[in-house]
Amino acid sequence: MTSIANTLKPPYYAVIFTSLRSDDSSGYDEMAVRMAELAKMQPGFLGIESAREQIGITVSYWSDLESIKQWKMNAEHLGAQQLGRERWYRSFKTRIAKVERDYEF
Amino acid sequence: MTSIANTLKPPYYAVIFTSLRSDDSSGYDEMAVRMAELAKMQPGFLGIESAREQIGITVSYWSDLESIKQWKMNAEHLGAQQLGRERWYRSFKTRIAKVERDYEF
Repeated sequence: MTSIANTLKPPYYAVIFTSLRSDDSSGYDEMAVRMAELAKMQPGFLGIESAREQIGITVSYWSDLESIKQWKMNAEHLGAQQLGRERWYRSFKTRIAKVERDYEF
Repeated sequence: MTSIANTLKPPYYAVIFTSLRSDDSSGYDEMAVRMAELAKMQPGFLGIESAREQIGITVSYWSDLESIKQWKMNAEHLGAQQLGRERWYRSFKTRIAKVERDYEF
């Protein structure tokens, strides 16, 4: 995830996932790569941006709420979410937001 | 910016600022610290989260659109925005989004 997501004209949706990692990173990197690849294959996916320092922030962009719901319920993604809660994350917060306006430079 | 922002119950607003830095970092760190401090003093400010790897992502949270507008037009912030375009950023994208739902772990 090395670039600014090239999303369409608003409105569209953003899922802002902010996390604090635990000390257990076993299997995390592979899963993060796999989940980003899998997300890109979902209907309604528009783009993804990610960075981590003290906290991690991943923002994925979607055309509509139904696409977000389907992605949340994707079987392989559900498995990753469970491992996240059990193993990789000390805490996280997920925010679903409607992008009303954007501008760039 | 080391923690997950402790925002109120939705709805509230998020400003998602994603950026690619230029090679010129002179004065950047001081300005970033100053702008985060200044943002926290603005009416309607709820929290801020930030991380940078290949790209930088800063998400600030606000109670309403008017507070975001006032912050964007803050005189000292306007100066920082101009320096950002002239000096620190190769490109950036700003998205204004209404947080409709959130959940945490």
